[in-house]
Amino acid sequence: MTDSTAPVVDVDALAAAVTKQGGVVKMLKKDGAKAEVLEPEVAKLLALRAEFDAARKAADGNKTDKPFNRAAFDDLVKRKMFVVSAFEIHGGVGGLFDLGPASCALKANILDVWRQHFILEENMLEMECTCLTPEVVLKTSGHVEKFTDLMVKDESTGDCHRADKLLEDFIDSFLESNPTLSREEQDEYRRVQRQADAYTPEELHKLFQKYGIVSPTTGNALTFPFAFNLMFKTSIGPEGVAAGYLRPETAQGLFVNFRRLLEYNSGRMPFAAAQIGLGFRNEISPRAGLLRVREFCMAEIEHFVNPQDKKHPKFASLAGQSLVLFPNDEQLGSGKTRVMTIGEAVREGIVNNETLGFFMAKTWRFMEKIGMDAARLRFRQHLKTEMAHYAADCWDLEIKSSYGWVECVGHADRACYDLMVHSKKSKVPLIASYTLPEPREEEVWVMKADKAVIGKTFKQEQKKVMAALEALTEEGGERVEAVLAELEGPEGAAEVEGCRVTRGMVTWSKVKRMVQEVKYMPSVIEPSFGIGRVLYSLLEHSFYQRKTDENRCVMAFLPRVAPIKVGVYPLLNKPEFAPFTESIVGKLTDAGISNRADATGVSVGRRYSRADEIGCPFGVTVDYETLAAQDVTVRERDSTAQIRVPIERLVPLLKGLVDGSKTWEKDAMGSFPVVRTGEEEEEGGEEGGGER
Amino acid sequence: MTDSTAPVVDVDALAAAVTKQGGVVKMLKKDGAKAEVLEPEVAKLLALRAEFDAARKAADGNKTDKPFNRAAFDDLVKRKMFVVSAFEIHGGVGGLFDLGPASCALKANILDVWRQHFILEENMLEMECTCLTPEVVLKTSGHVEKFTDLMVKDESTGDCHRADKLLEDFIDSFLESNPTLSREEQDEYRRVQRQADAYTPEELHKLFQKYGIVSPTTGNALTFPFAFNLMFKTSIGPEGVAAGYLRPETAQGLFVNFRRLLEYNSGRMPFAAAQIGLGFRNEISPRAGLLRVREFCMAEIEHFVNPQDKKHPKFASLAGQSLVLFPNDEQLGSGKTRVMTIGEAVREGIVNNETLGFFMAKTWRFMEKIGMDAARLRFRQHLKTEMAHYAADCWDLEIKSSYGWVECVGHADRACYDLMVHSKKSKVPLIASYTLPEPREEEVWVMKADKAVIGKTFKQEQKKVMAALEALTEEGGERVEAVLAELEGPEGAAEVEGCRVTRGMVTWSKVKRMVQEVKYMPSVIEPSFGIGRVLYSLLEHSFYQRKTDENRCVMAFLPRVAPIKVGVYPLLNKPEFAPFTESIVGKLTDAGISNRADATGVSVGRRYSRADEIGCPFGVTVDYETLAAQDVTVRERDSTAQIRVPIERLVPLLKGLVDGSKTWEKDAMGSFPVVRTGEEEEEGGEEGGGER
Repeated sequence: MTDSTAPVVDVDALAAAVTKQGGVVKMLKKDGAKAEVLEPEVAKLLALRAEFDAARKAADGNKTDKPFNRAAFDDLVKRKMFVVSAFEIHGGVGGLFDLGPASCALKANILDVWRQHFILEENMLEMECTCLTPEVVLKTSGHVEKFTDLMVKDESTGDCHRADKLLEDFIDSFLESNPTLSREEQDEYRRVQRQADAYTPEELHKLFQKYGIVSPTTGNALTFPFAFNLMFKTSIGPEGVAAGYLRPETAQGLFVNFRRLLEYNSGRMPFAAAQIGLGFRNEISPRAGLLRVREFCMAEIEHFVNPQDKKHPKFASLAGQSLVLFPNDEQLGSGKTRVMTIGEAVREGIVNNETLGFFMAKTWRFMEKIGMDAARLRFRQHLKTEMAHYAADCWDLEIKSSYGWVECVGHADRACYDLMVHSKKSKVPLIASYTLPEPREEEVWVMKADKAVIGKTFKQEQKKVMAALEALTEEGGERVEAVLAELEGPEGAAEVEGCRVTRGMVTWSKVKRMVQEVKYMPSVIEPSFGIGRVLYSLLEHSFYQRKTDENRCVMAFLPRVAPIKVGVYPLLNKPEFAPFTESIVGKLTDAGISNRADATGVSVGRRYSRADEIGCPFGVTVDYETLAAQDVTVRERDSTAQIRVPIERLVPLLKGLVDGSKTWEKDAMGSFPVVRTGEEEEEGGEEGGGER
Repeated sequence: MTDSTAPVVDVDALAAAVTKQGGVVKMLKKDGAKAEVLEPEVAKLLALRAEFDAARKAADGNKTDKPFNRAAFDDLVKRKMFVVSAFEIHGGVGGLFDLGPASCALKANILDVWRQHFILEENMLEMECTCLTPEVVLKTSGHVEKFTDLMVKDESTGDCHRADKLLEDFIDSFLESNPTLSREEQDEYRRVQRQADAYTPEELHKLFQKYGIVSPTTGNALTFPFAFNLMFKTSIGPEGVAAGYLRPETAQGLFVNFRRLLEYNSGRMPFAAAQIGLGFRNEISPRAGLLRVREFCMAEIEHFVNPQDKKHPKFASLAGQSLVLFPNDEQLGSGKTRVMTIGEAVREGIVNNETLGFFMAKTWRFMEKIGMDAARLRFRQHLKTEMAHYAADCWDLEIKSSYGWVECVGHADRACYDLMVHSKKSKVPLIASYTLPEPREEEVWVMKADKAVIGKTFKQEQKKVMAALEALTEEGGERVEAVLAELEGPEGAAEVEGCRVTRGMVTWSKVKRMVQEVKYMPSVIEPSFGIGRVLYSLLEHSFYQRKTDENRCVMAFLPRVAPIKVGVYPLLNKPEFAPFTESIVGKLTDAGISNRADATGVSVGRRYSRADEIGCPFGVTVDYETLAAQDVTVRERDSTAQIRVPIERLVPLLKGLVDGSKTWEKDAMGSFPVVRTGEEEEEGGEEGGGER
């Protein structure tokens, strides 16, 4: 990149133009347009594409064109303490990692953008609920029973392995060592691999036997796959009798607070609640660094909406956003993604509804805002077999890294499942309502219960039974019909809340009533961000090695998310420079711009390289000229270009560059004397990975 | 308050002037000054005090002068969802609370100030470590053995109680029901009460018997006090064999990362690491809302420093800060606090060293920055019996609320205890060093070991023994002398790492060497913030009822920390107002100013009252005049004064008022037409606590 701010916009604009023109050509072809109409548009498309490629290449001008270098990346990540094994000096623990100063600040900045982009712009209600969760909540949500992965054990050593991952790994290495397989055979293996986590234990066992899969570490036979619950269990209170878990997701805290949230929102629907917090999963075989860990930060949104009306008032504003989609039929078929606007995708029924589509487009824009490479993003729809029975539609935003495509943000239309189960268990109605402009006649269920008989039959349980019957009436619809059918059927009885209710105790009839308030149980549309995975992906997408010297590594963070925005470097560690350094540091700190002075006795070039490694976008150097002329050198990280800026104009310039109101190209290079353009080779190449 | 920003500063300046003048008078008295010198200074002091009282009263002009109304406060906190019981619809869990939208934003803003005030200003290294912690770490730190509270059980029901709290409560109610006790007797009880959590089980048992303390709920006899470990235990990994705990504090994560942090800091000392994150304690009897909970947010700083040099380079900049101190001798003696500058306190040896003092003053300023009432703050020194044996000094910042004085921020000089235990256990040296300007001759220990004999004797353990002997040599000093003495003593043997090392295997001698690098194990000075307690205290300190109508409650948050900065109110919910409301909301959002439009069909006065309850400092009203003149009314929360502002000047004004660069008095009241001064009674009194 010759510039960390301006060209990004240019390349993006070109990419959008290419997508748009592609759409024009596609439409013309579909409509069977004549050659004289079609050809100029195709030519225009090709020209745009060439321009885009050139711009992209130019923007990447300082980057090596070799493939991603995992060894150099891993070395940098560890050496600069972006990610370190937790409790390393005591031997560490699988799946637990600490974030050091640079990634801690990076994460805080990503979450700041997230809060602004989602919570503030969409007026969401943010909450903070506890990680410790009593058993009743997670039994109700289904996690105690179903939050499991299939595990196999080594029959001799007892070592544990996650079954689906063994299958995936087996297929990877099988295909690698059998390159002569036909295309069809390869596709078949890939199809099996894509469904790995959707198989039943029996299906997996059969596949293990068919492929002869054994323990990858010992070669021993493996047990039949069995379900292992991934929640960490503990006990709450001094008596040691109340079981609790660490939450595996933050969502449940929002669901159980629905009633208070709706009240806080003055009863207005739809609305979204959001939560940023920790989740915990006792992964069977954690690996791939930050991508599969046992403790992680999530940012979840629960958008509550009338299931009869999933339109979104702001959908039109994002409808033109192009997305890369990988619908479930393509996954099982062609294996190819499709590029289309979210407007088209919803119109064609590929994405279930506007609200789900709105959040998908909004997430895509968020990724661009924090500097993720849009060419390595796609939305993968859940397969029918992956999706919960109640879900209406699910799309994972996947990000490509050196570990392949990884799910980073789920987007699920969970229907009213969550509110329903909590409402049923707690007996607290979790419903919303809207008022019709005029009252209208409607058929409603009316219950007639014989309280005397119910009281006599169920004694202490009569209250519970009555409450259940009333809730059933309130809910209406099919469930009332089902119970009614049972009561009127040959059995003459139905089970309600574990009690045998018999014919004569209760009956329902439909009556017509004038109704103005319509009650309903809201559906939930849930975008769920794995922040640790987003963070890791951003580290990979930001990493590059300089073309001039591959030992010089750079983290190309956008200024907005960069951990430290400005490095301050006195040419020498001498007393005459100190007042300038201190004054600049003080002014930057007062302006809220994170900065770090580096007065160590190495060359300025080496100090630039050091700052490049933690992605610091701007450097300010105090030198002998500063003493005389009260000005400093400002250097931009990616272009390595340098300009000369009077000290009194320094903070406004840097503030603008960091908050995005100014660009390096125009407001820096275009407005101040240029000391070097960045074409020249920069000193400091001796730095590299070996320093310390 | 007639103004939410400016007068705060005035009152503070006056308070400082009173303190300063008080010092002058004290000095004169001490020096035995003559009356003609002394009297004018005393007169000046009295005048300043009167001015201060008047200013304080004026600043509180709109507040009721009745005492804190807990019922009204609790009602507001729950109704506006500041704090709600976690999992309320499922019956809740003791000691677990959720934060709703307003307090969630409040907390985020408090943490923003914290990051700016500590991490950014003091260039600290922030980290994020995991909550899940393997047993070895907490065994090493001493938590597995010692992180306990004394518990007693009801002998009949088995109910659990925290012993020290029972004693404290007993004394409270005993003193209340025995008002005729002599002052000396009362003081004696209070002294016992202040030491409640420092007694041994035997001492507590004696006191329980002496006072006849029984279960407060059943009146049954209680068991002998026994230690209950407060950590939540779980198991990490699918095998179920590795014990783990939820961390009871965030500090351990920083200690075990010391080596990497020092390296990241290029070896420079002193430096501080910081961490904001969750802690967990399985409290025996959680109560007092957010003050004693089982899951809480902490913000901890570990400042690593040379134990020989605890001076702080920036101490002079805070030395003049006045603090209220409650030293341990006063706690056991007069029971009175002392007001003095931190400079005096360190000079007089009341506070152990500059670095500890620096952080105490810095914490005090932080509390003022977020709007805590400085008149309800004090630093209480730990009693000798409370303090860990290794600690050099400990001061708790206590904040007064309706629950009494509560420890909210610990400030402990923990010496090198933490690094020492982790270093010993892990065999990883956790040391720093400094370079002398010139090499100097020093005596160092040199080891001579007979490796052949050691190898033959200890076989597989020889490496471990050698490493331990080398570490011992590195450490030098008394421990080498002790082992040497044992080897040369009658036993002729010493235990090293569980192995019996005998005379002849190893010996040490002192030799003189030229040394330029001096190694040492750093001391740790630890400010540790309980953010939940700070948050709760701020809620209480911010709460008031209006003098004109006590049903109208206000949260007087400073704009910087207020959850929502601006409310936007169209006079009526009519289409002609909507474009103005939307445009203002859009501009505020783009400027990063959190805001909320309220177009519900109640009077603007009621909507102001509603916003007062969540502490929204400014309101913008769109009315019929807006349509014609493109201007709006801006209202300030505490004074209820209103001005008229052209729309194009609105965002810059509000931005300045929120970030503190502008004041309401000067830049709002002084620069725009005043619609009402705030002296008149405001409509909307019908709102109050009863709404909804």
